[in-house]
Amino acid sequence: MDILEKIDALNLSLPDIAPPGGSYVSVNVRGMIAYVAIQFPILNGEYQYQGQYGNNLTLSDGYEATKLTALNILAQIEHYVGFNKIEGLNHIDAYYLAANGWDEAPKVVNGASDLFTQVLDERGRHTRGIYGVESLPRNFSVGITSSFTLR
Amino acid sequence: MDILEKIDALNLSLPDIAPPGGSYVSVNVRGMIAYVAIQFPILNGEYQYQGQYGNNLTLSDGYEATKLTALNILAQIEHYVGFNKIEGLNHIDAYYLAANGWDEAPKVVNGASDLFTQVLDERGRHTRGIYGVESLPRNFSVGITSSFTLR
Amino acid sequence: MDILEKIDALNLSLPDIAPPGGSYVSVNVRGMIAYVAIQFPILNGEYQYQGQYGNNLTLSDGYEATKLTALNILAQIEHYVGFNKIEGLNHIDAYYLAANGWDEAPKVVNGASDLFTQVLDERGRHTRGIYGVESLPRNFSVGITSSFTLR
Repeated sequence: MDILEKIDALNLSLPDIAPPGGSYVSVNVRGMIAYVAIQFPILNGEYQYQGQYGNNLTLSDGYEATKLTALNILAQIEHYVGFNKIEGLNHIDAYYLAANGWDEAPKVVNGASDLFTQVLDERGRHTRGIYGVESLPRNFSVGITSSFTLR
Repeated sequence: MDILEKIDALNLSLPDIAPPGGSYVSVNVRGMIAYVAIQFPILNGEYQYQGQYGNNLTLSDGYEATKLTALNILAQIEHYVGFNKIEGLNHIDAYYLAANGWDEAPKVVNGASDLFTQVLDERGRHTRGIYGVESLPRNFSVGITSSFTLR
Repeated sequence: MDILEKIDALNLSLPDIAPPGGSYVSVNVRGMIAYVAIQFPILNGEYQYQGQYGNNLTLSDGYEATKLTALNILAQIEHYVGFNKIEGLNHIDAYYLAANGWDEAPKVVNGASDLFTQVLDERGRHTRGIYGVESLPRNFSVGITSSFTLR
């Protein structure tokens, strides 16, 4: 099964690519690395999962939110580079908004990590960092930056 | 026009390079990448734009603050590497301080993104992430980390 | 002296490697770069230095906390890659928790920066960024992400 077939087998699909939110590009290839701008949980242009975990959003919402964000990353890479040119995912940095004392972020970000592994197999192997921040654009509950090494 | 002439044509100039704020270096070349330590809006040694957007600082202040920060990045790269060795900018991560509910960060960070594009053309193409954080050293309202690919 | 001897000469030792806190890997080699997942001040499985600087933790605690975090980074690299394969450290991003108005983060993060330089010499040269965030997993007072270039 190729990557698009795997996404389909999970009853998922790549969302429309979101335009950049400013004067930058969504994917930048330099040398052997494709840098991907921060992606958010946007479904075909519709903003989703805005707010804070432990407040208006649950752990289960968060798992879906980071999965959707990961699908946006894959959509950008497929559109601007093509899966066939990818050696693999390098690292993801996940930034989230949460209520005081909420501590389920690792499980929330597994929504993205699990998807990358399920869809890309060995090419989805990655390291990550997760950080609770004060604010994100448009009050998105999570944003993820990433990069990929090219073949 | 070369890069310094373009900066001059915008009625701008490269500020004095700021020393590192601890036991690290300002620019680190490893392999084909030049990593640049976090830069702040410092003008020839003078700290500028300290505080929070939506509190003591406006959107217009923020645009100027990230532009000045971008000029500091360019000053470091020119001093330690030289513009002639640069293939291009990879990615920037911009961290800002803001009052609750303030949501103009993308426009603020365009001050840096626009400058990179105006001055470096295709070599200024970049991806970015933006994050509202709780605090930054010396209460700077913004800090930007970046890296460049070498020729 | 090799690197392990230098660590020993400082009366330090590499801690047990901490397992990843989710569905990712601790070290990911892609191309010529080894990416290291966020590391925390964990000593042989025991969580240390949880809380906020300027609240329950002092500057001196912080220096020790980032030093311990740096030792965890070195333990991961030695285990998964081996020091002999490392050209050098690239960049570190340090995220910390602090009380309002506390501004000693650069000195705190020197605990990591100094250790890298003492132990790895020229190969420990690095750039860095430091950011005060709202929360980190398990209320750790600091977390550090990093990457190394391979030979």
